[in-house]
Amino acid sequence: MTDKNETNSSEQHAQADDITMSGGGLYSLATKGAKDVIDHATPLVVDAINALNLDSSLTEFKMSDMGCADGGTSLSMVEAALNQVRQHAEHADISVVYSDQPRNDFNALVSIVHDLTDFDSYVKRIDRVYPLFSGSSFYLQAVPDNTLHLGFSATAMHWLSTKPANITNHVHMVGASGEELRAFSNQAKKDWETILACRARELTSGGRLVLINFCRDSQGQYLGNTGGVNMFDNFNENWKEFLSQGIINDTEYENMTLPQYYNTVEEFSDPLTNKSSDCYQAGLRLENIETRVVPCPFAEEFKQHNDVQKFANGLIPTIRSWNESIFLAGLDSSRPLPERKQIIEDYYDTYRQQVVTAPQEHGMGYVHAYKSIYKV
Amino acid sequence: MTDKNETNSSEQHAQADDITMSGGGLYSLATKGAKDVIDHATPLVVDAINALNLDSSLTEFKMSDMGCADGGTSLSMVEAALNQVRQHAEHADISVVYSDQPRNDFNALVSIVHDLTDFDSYVKRIDRVYPLFSGSSFYLQAVPDNTLHLGFSATAMHWLSTKPANITNHVHMVGASGEELRAFSNQAKKDWETILACRARELTSGGRLVLINFCRDSQGQYLGNTGGVNMFDNFNENWKEFLSQGIINDTEYENMTLPQYYNTVEEFSDPLTNKSSDCYQAGLRLENIETRVVPCPFAEEFKQHNDVQKFANGLIPTIRSWNESIFLAGLDSSRPLPERKQIIEDYYDTYRQQVVTAPQEHGMGYVHAYKSIYKV
Repeated sequence: MTDKNETNSSEQHAQADDITMSGGGLYSLATKGAKDVIDHATPLVVDAINALNLDSSLTEFKMSDMGCADGGTSLSMVEAALNQVRQHAEHADISVVYSDQPRNDFNALVSIVHDLTDFDSYVKRIDRVYPLFSGSSFYLQAVPDNTLHLGFSATAMHWLSTKPANITNHVHMVGASGEELRAFSNQAKKDWETILACRARELTSGGRLVLINFCRDSQGQYLGNTGGVNMFDNFNENWKEFLSQGIINDTEYENMTLPQYYNTVEEFSDPLTNKSSDCYQAGLRLENIETRVVPCPFAEEFKQHNDVQKFANGLIPTIRSWNESIFLAGLDSSRPLPERKQIIEDYYDTYRQQVVTAPQEHGMGYVHAYKSIYKV
Repeated sequence: MTDKNETNSSEQHAQADDITMSGGGLYSLATKGAKDVIDHATPLVVDAINALNLDSSLTEFKMSDMGCADGGTSLSMVEAALNQVRQHAEHADISVVYSDQPRNDFNALVSIVHDLTDFDSYVKRIDRVYPLFSGSSFYLQAVPDNTLHLGFSATAMHWLSTKPANITNHVHMVGASGEELRAFSNQAKKDWETILACRARELTSGGRLVLINFCRDSQGQYLGNTGGVNMFDNFNENWKEFLSQGIINDTEYENMTLPQYYNTVEEFSDPLTNKSSDCYQAGLRLENIETRVVPCPFAEEFKQHNDVQKFANGLIPTIRSWNESIFLAGLDSSRPLPERKQIIEDYYDTYRQQVVTAPQEHGMGYVHAYKSIYKV
């Protein structure tokens, strides 16, 4: 089997091939913070279900979890959602559509949702629920037109469909400027509109979205930049140091550009409030948007246990779980794979030493925009 | 992660944990014959779609492929089906629900269907089609009530939900007798009724099933018993020889009982024609049933190329792809895994030598019952 590029009949969008979350259930094990974020958002999901005006005549309810990775972080939220649906529509059969890019670890996802692992899945407690899994990323429509009652996504849609440019002085758009920043913001605008256009087609009339996305907030905070060391600046400085030591070369340094964008509240809101936009024309309306900070769970626990090794053993894997595949792919493929892997090990070891040396300076606080959207 | 037993909210049925088809796309590569069988059945699928009386007002069409394994063997059939649906219902969005037990290799399945491999998937040629994947085996309902237009399954439903007994003198029910055979036929009757009951709930009124299942035909033929050496008897004789040589013990010999049952036409038909049965009461009707033999593709090719090594290199992997996991699980778990694996290697090597010595005597011809079923 050789791999071909991802193709689809109707759309060309695809997430970059290099992006994969950790597989085998490790993603959810490592990303306690991502589960905290979803748990904190569960009241918004419950509110959205209440606003759907479901009643006992409903025979089928469909919800989605877009960019679900291994599904472990949303189990509690989905269970709360399903229970809420049944409060209103006690006879409804329920489909839960888990979607992610086709290179996601679907074996881990299916095992976790079907309760074959140590995660505690709702499937054994809620009857007439039909989990379905889709390999269509959120840049594609995953279910037929006008069939989705509730679309959910958390901590996923910051991944751009493609990397629009390398950033020559940083690893992330939060440190970019000028033309390079413009290339990222243009791509992000196009991608956000594509994401919303797909959802506008999927949703029933009156259907709702609860979307929780990384953002830059009004105080300039974003993931890993909520006080203390700025995580992305630290990533960058460590790579720059590797470059100056000759461990990596200029091309590799530039390739280590994360294909992400963190929208502001204004950028998220624009296509949903601008009456001439395609999204608005397609019926999507922004009911509410707010930003929230969820503190780094490992840093919070450290304040209690004060065990610096334990802190580093929690924080570094949570970082690795989402960016290791990108940084590894940035290294020249002419290097033998073991050499590339060693560079990556050394890179995270460097970060780990920094955490151990000054633990109170480090952490990965989450900064999200929470959006409630409906379709007229 | 430790594994737990498969559980489900509403039903206790589950296929035995030991049964897995070869993963990583190997199943479809190894089972050319299984694809031949599906291709031969495609006209039945087309007829079933024509009988659905679809029209251009239809907005959503849903079909399923139950027990799909890695999905490679049904790609051509699904494409033909989708094209036929669009002949009648040109505006319909189409969902294709691929289902298999939750330990199936879903990563291979998603990759193959989404055209990331060398298999040629229809997704790039047909628009508005939404592949969905389900970890609910055919012993469970996979989609909500009254939503499925066409259910398809090929070469899958002979796997029982549980092994009702060990067969003390054979590896398969085709060689069983007395109480042991009765235990298998009772289990098979219950399982077939469960399978049909789930489908009765899934199907729309007027919806259809095309089911292609291993069977024993009116001449007593079945898989691997269409002339020449009887494959299952040969399996059995080789294990008996391993037993007499002390390579395996009595318990292991008995454990090597395949949890399969091959129904006769009468056994398949009974719940669909007996007016007092639950299936009949639920609205399922048998439109047609017939049996067909599809010759072993490797034996057919051998008649042309006459290369005995090539023949054995095709036939043995196709056999291994579906029974290796069962035979391996029959061996005492106190043996080190490498020892168990070596016994299995030696076992298939024995078969391979027999094929090389008398190639014209061997083959795995397919004997299926083809059923067209509808819901009133």
